[in-house]
Amino acid sequence: MDMTKVFHVNGGDEETTYAKNSDMQKRALSLEKSFVEEALLDYLGGKDFPEKMVIADLGCSMGPNALTPTKEIIDVVRDQCRKLGRRSPEFMVYLNDLPGNDFNNIFTSLQPDFYSKMREEEQCCVAGVPGSFHGRLFLSKSLHFVHSSASLHWLSQVPSGLDAKSGSMLNKGKIYISKTSSKAVVDAYKQQFHNDFSMFLESRAKEVIPGGHMVLSFMGRESIDPIVEECCYPWELIAQSLMSMVSEGIIQEEKVDRFNMPCYIASIQEVKTIVEDEGSFIINRLEAMDLYWDVDSSCEGENALLSRGERVSRMLRSILQSTLSFHFGMELMDELFGRLSDIISSHLSNIEGKFVVLILSVTRQ
Amino acid sequence: MDMTKVFHVNGGDEETTYAKNSDMQKRALSLEKSFVEEALLDYLGGKDFPEKMVIADLGCSMGPNALTPTKEIIDVVRDQCRKLGRRSPEFMVYLNDLPGNDFNNIFTSLQPDFYSKMREEEQCCVAGVPGSFHGRLFLSKSLHFVHSSASLHWLSQVPSGLDAKSGSMLNKGKIYISKTSSKAVVDAYKQQFHNDFSMFLESRAKEVIPGGHMVLSFMGRESIDPIVEECCYPWELIAQSLMSMVSEGIIQEEKVDRFNMPCYIASIQEVKTIVEDEGSFIINRLEAMDLYWDVDSSCEGENALLSRGERVSRMLRSILQSTLSFHFGMELMDELFGRLSDIISSHLSNIEGKFVVLILSVTRQ
Repeated sequence: MDMTKVFHVNGGDEETTYAKNSDMQKRALSLEKSFVEEALLDYLGGKDFPEKMVIADLGCSMGPNALTPTKEIIDVVRDQCRKLGRRSPEFMVYLNDLPGNDFNNIFTSLQPDFYSKMREEEQCCVAGVPGSFHGRLFLSKSLHFVHSSASLHWLSQVPSGLDAKSGSMLNKGKIYISKTSSKAVVDAYKQQFHNDFSMFLESRAKEVIPGGHMVLSFMGRESIDPIVEECCYPWELIAQSLMSMVSEGIIQEEKVDRFNMPCYIASIQEVKTIVEDEGSFIINRLEAMDLYWDVDSSCEGENALLSRGERVSRMLRSILQSTLSFHFGMELMDELFGRLSDIISSHLSNIEGKFVVLILSVTRQ
Repeated sequence: MDMTKVFHVNGGDEETTYAKNSDMQKRALSLEKSFVEEALLDYLGGKDFPEKMVIADLGCSMGPNALTPTKEIIDVVRDQCRKLGRRSPEFMVYLNDLPGNDFNNIFTSLQPDFYSKMREEEQCCVAGVPGSFHGRLFLSKSLHFVHSSASLHWLSQVPSGLDAKSGSMLNKGKIYISKTSSKAVVDAYKQQFHNDFSMFLESRAKEVIPGGHMVLSFMGRESIDPIVEECCYPWELIAQSLMSMVSEGIIQEEKVDRFNMPCYIASIQEVKTIVEDEGSFIINRLEAMDLYWDVDSSCEGENALLSRGERVSRMLRSILQSTLSFHFGMELMDELFGRLSDIISSHLSNIEGKFVVLILSVTRQ
């Protein structure tokens, strides 16, 4: 499964679109706010005050969150310029995601609010950049500030040896690392993340100017053990939903045995080691924070009327459907996420229902 | 009518999509080839050989032509680098069009052919830039080479005083400058083009580095008289189609009287004067060339089976539908372009059926 071709959050206008189910990602953005501010103030405090500032948001997705980090970054820079009595730099903003992302949605939403606000003061230019952040996307030494939220836990592919094509059935009845997974499965996932995150850092090392910053947040864990509840729970529950469909003959068991999710929930220690080994970036801050799946009070619109199980199921569907439907078929998605909704509802009282988010702030040496 | 919100070529996958009806634009690109080559060789012959080259294609549209100019530009640069024994620069390509353009179509078509060819050698990065080229789109002094084909004859709006909102009915029964148009109509069109093309030049003057080049081609005329056949014919024929629908009570006459096309077919002399008056760019070459509406031998696929009238009507529909349907309603478009097809068929033996293309090559002082 080539993620560059398969993965995208749900576009369009329906109830399962990412645009209407990205409330959790909005809360994830608020967690990293102090990291972004700190990094920007550090950058602006350097010896040469910038005339131009080139910002990249990697894995920007679509919907209401797509422009939120950009707006916040520009607001912080402008505020600081006002305090320092300096002229704000011109901004060039690159919004990146895979080519299947709904860039039309982002571009039409820029008009008129974003531009009228952003162009009040200095020039603010916006471009969409389609492609995988696991490889090169920009010119050498062209970026001043890189941001990425809720994206770097995605792998470039299902770990080698675990993909459906290889015919492997090493991880029977599961779709991610689980208590029943062998060491070979855990190692394959670890290795794929190591390769992908290293490639990411090497590519950005070429593109970010010396003294430039990156603030990256993504799903992770504090524990060294890869089999802890907050890492595996969503995948366990999806596997349960799939296996209940197997038991009723709706899906062939082999089909589930051959499927593994192309994502990895890395430990804070793994991330630290990979950044240090790659060597181009200095770590300023690396922290783990809790992110609850569902917070009643934060729900808006029609989603406030749903049960918590339905909301969490829809949130997961808006992100995972492209990958799951590629393997299992689109016609099974209503059934699958219906079952997932019921399973989540019956479990929510027993489990914490949270992810851990790692937030990493680094400077290019 | 705000063109930024209304205008786009027909997207999607149907028979009236621009992607399937852009054969004439492909021939327009071949006319300008020597201009592009000359400008690039001149740029590469400058005293500092570039390590990076930032290219913008303004009004790139979608479909098979969207990447053609970019590919040609990069091929010329790479060939020349081979001849000179120099390392090819890294490329950053900006593909610009209005926000309603189908950028998703372009981005998915990049994969895998474009990237595999373009990334064989040096780095080649691609970004989509939504917005009007009548204003700023890029950072100051950030562009080395600007290209635009078949776009600059579009105005940013219907000329002031002639738009439907103003209530003006100065140009009764016509949709563009015509033999029956008053001097006020001609002047309004001239003034709008003057303002828009000046704004275009001023914006690019800020963005193109000194010594950078632009090659721009767009519909125009050799004659000083704005009412010559090759300028007005398509608009006359569309007006005839509309008026035939008025005579049958399908459209209200007032609706046609209030509509004027937001485009202008400028004379070679007008273009020269505006560039010289703006003063930032030196004209290297400015020429007029004939572009025939329809060349049988160049048709491919299902369009080869159509009558010439149908082909020309579809070509015009793929470009003009967004603007015409905004005013007259989408439900009338089949009828309108069906009538246009018949009218063109009955006229093609009497008229030349061609546009004149102006090709302008300039250098930033």
